[in-house]
Amino acid sequence: MTFREDGQAALEWAARYLERVGDYPVLAQVAPGDVRSKLPPSPPEEGEPFANVLRDLDEVLLPAMTHWQSPRFFAYFANTASEPGILAELLIAATNQNGILWRTSPVLTELELHVADWAAQLLGLPRGWHGHIEDSASTSTFSAVVAARHATGGRVVVCSEHAHSSVEKAARMLGLEVRKVPVDGEFRLRPDALDLTDACCVVATVGTTSTTSVDPVPAIAAACRDAGVWFHVDAAYAGSAMVCPELRWAFDGVDRADSLVVNPHKWLLTPMDCSLLWTSRPVDFRAAFSLVPEYLRTADAADSLGAYGPALGRRFRALKLWAVLRCYGRTGLQAMIREHVRLAELFEGWVRDEPGWELSAPRPFSVVCFRREGTDEDSERLLGAVNSTGEIFISHTKLHDRYVLRLAVGNERTTEADVQRAWDVLRREAAAL
Amino acid sequence: MTFREDGQAALEWAARYLERVGDYPVLAQVAPGDVRSKLPPSPPEEGEPFANVLRDLDEVLLPAMTHWQSPRFFAYFANTASEPGILAELLIAATNQNGILWRTSPVLTELELHVADWAAQLLGLPRGWHGHIEDSASTSTFSAVVAARHATGGRVVVCSEHAHSSVEKAARMLGLEVRKVPVDGEFRLRPDALDLTDACCVVATVGTTSTTSVDPVPAIAAACRDAGVWFHVDAAYAGSAMVCPELRWAFDGVDRADSLVVNPHKWLLTPMDCSLLWTSRPVDFRAAFSLVPEYLRTADAADSLGAYGPALGRRFRALKLWAVLRCYGRTGLQAMIREHVRLAELFEGWVRDEPGWELSAPRPFSVVCFRREGTDEDSERLLGAVNSTGEIFISHTKLHDRYVLRLAVGNERTTEADVQRAWDVLRREAAAL
Repeated sequence: MTFREDGQAALEWAARYLERVGDYPVLAQVAPGDVRSKLPPSPPEEGEPFANVLRDLDEVLLPAMTHWQSPRFFAYFANTASEPGILAELLIAATNQNGILWRTSPVLTELELHVADWAAQLLGLPRGWHGHIEDSASTSTFSAVVAARHATGGRVVVCSEHAHSSVEKAARMLGLEVRKVPVDGEFRLRPDALDLTDACCVVATVGTTSTTSVDPVPAIAAACRDAGVWFHVDAAYAGSAMVCPELRWAFDGVDRADSLVVNPHKWLLTPMDCSLLWTSRPVDFRAAFSLVPEYLRTADAADSLGAYGPALGRRFRALKLWAVLRCYGRTGLQAMIREHVRLAELFEGWVRDEPGWELSAPRPFSVVCFRREGTDEDSERLLGAVNSTGEIFISHTKLHDRYVLRLAVGNERTTEADVQRAWDVLRREAAAL
Repeated sequence: MTFREDGQAALEWAARYLERVGDYPVLAQVAPGDVRSKLPPSPPEEGEPFANVLRDLDEVLLPAMTHWQSPRFFAYFANTASEPGILAELLIAATNQNGILWRTSPVLTELELHVADWAAQLLGLPRGWHGHIEDSASTSTFSAVVAARHATGGRVVVCSEHAHSSVEKAARMLGLEVRKVPVDGEFRLRPDALDLTDACCVVATVGTTSTTSVDPVPAIAAACRDAGVWFHVDAAYAGSAMVCPELRWAFDGVDRADSLVVNPHKWLLTPMDCSLLWTSRPVDFRAAFSLVPEYLRTADAADSLGAYGPALGRRFRALKLWAVLRCYGRTGLQAMIREHVRLAELFEGWVRDEPGWELSAPRPFSVVCFRREGTDEDSERLLGAVNSTGEIFISHTKLHDRYVLRLAVGNERTTEADVQRAWDVLRREAAAL
């Protein structure tokens, strides 16, 4: 193994991948089982050169990738692993820090707390919250629910019908009940329908998965305060947009949350995985999670981040978020968010003005929900036709019981020409059906 | 941002880090707060060049790293981020695959299943188990307990006093009770003391954290089978050693487990994070975890790995394990394990033969538990003195209520000279106290 030579080849692979990613079919055009059928059934007896890994990456793996880095990935929440973030992952792996305790990596523990503070400032959060990084919003929300149940003793998790499935998953793992609150005509939780009986927490969403609607946070916060119920805010996607003051209306009242999740791996240029979890009640997290067996007891009283979530060890995720915040700065992050919102607004306008097409929900950020006239089956066929071209990849949802298409702008490489192409492909395939 | 130039600089940083890592103090010689005091309190307004990140990595961050990659890291479970694993992390980040569903990354889903099968073959596990990757053993064991509770309805998690703290943490998160079974003189769960009343699962450990003792798996498996209780095996550390047939005695009976965790990021050359979780009861995992909201519904019926654990999205961890298994092969992995066991055995012999020193537990694998005659305070002082030299880093535990030192061999760079140096430092510092 010659690290510099193999590394040079890996780096060149990555550089060329990023240059060409827009040329590949966005959605992998393979059938289940295609990849495994091309892989040897057993591992090799003898070691092979790293060059073989790169060769098979091209020949076997690349055709089965769905290209999240493509400028025409418009499905789910489009995201970006930015160049500083990618290179930071190389450094994270090379140093292989493991933050079991402060002393097992002082730099990891302190940088994680520090970048969480930096991010809090960028998003306009209150000073003094305790922030750390989990792998995913599912884990962050799960952790908040664990802390909430521990603190309140309640057995019901309350959220809107449009909350992310991770809320229901967390409740199910914990053996808690979920109470879903109806939404208004714009897919926002209806505070007049809140029932907090036996509740341990309410999860409000700023930027729901289907439409990016924003729940009425101030009203929910007030109800939680009155009832002594934990208030968690899921801003996994839209939270990153708070770097722009003109979008901060969506965080009105979030300063009264007990916990908040925002995923930099969604819309803040950080490679998978990086989910920020803040709390104004760190003592309650520690009460729920802290456990110090003898083999981990140390003389220093420094913070151990395993006391704020399920895992004990943790990798040096803070380094990539630090690299991103350094290399983009506040203005760079704002420019990216604003461009994505502008592109989504443009697309929204095209749909609005086109006969036979309609918008299906308001567009607060960079996701447009829309449909073409016709049956749900027509819409589903259109989605299939569009995605099988490989030119773009979009996803769907159901709103008011109708099948609706979603176009999510969120990749750094996406230009106006890419959004224009998405619209061209949609109209072309619709006409052909 | 010029990806190739910045990447070249990052790669060179990583290469030089790995060349020099043995020269740095193994345990960071800093005080809590040192790192944060050197970082600007706020993020930059304007973006900076990536070179600034590398500069501060050297000047601010490096002195606060505890060097897990050092050949003289002997604490906890020593591990290695190998070169193929490190370079694979660069590729994982560059492609930024996200395995929410099969279609969002067919290659991720299928490679994860495939490398889990490869690893199962290497470790001599039964064919046909369902394997996937979680971030840590804490999450893997938590997932198994969730599935167990869902399948059995029991409210008690049973394990030995020497089980890892993650078992207790999982139970606490889930609101379950933990019943700790006493151990025998060699720190193995006593099956005669097993009480399975109201149990949802028993967690047996193959390679406990303190002494790497091996619980009597066949007897526990039989008791679980009779009582209809889920049987989970935590082989997070020692499982990797099963690549060597001469160590497979430790997996006797593991073929009767309902679930099993082994961490390639511990002793199988894979960078943080990579925890393999297998189950012979995948249907029970899906019953506990599967949830498909409309926005994730697809026509293909392919496996979605989010149905086997808490997270929904996942990064392309399979790629690094694949790279490691390819580049080392079975024989390369065996050679590494055998060398570590040999070095531990050597150190064990030195302690045994030295007047005034004693072994505190049997040594089945690569961890030696030992102490010098004197009080616990003497031992604690010795540990502090040794670690503050920066020459080696070892940790401790308590056995039979005595403070005991632990030397864990597990880094790929560790040579006989490093283990000799550890012994020299220990005797020198003991003499000086």
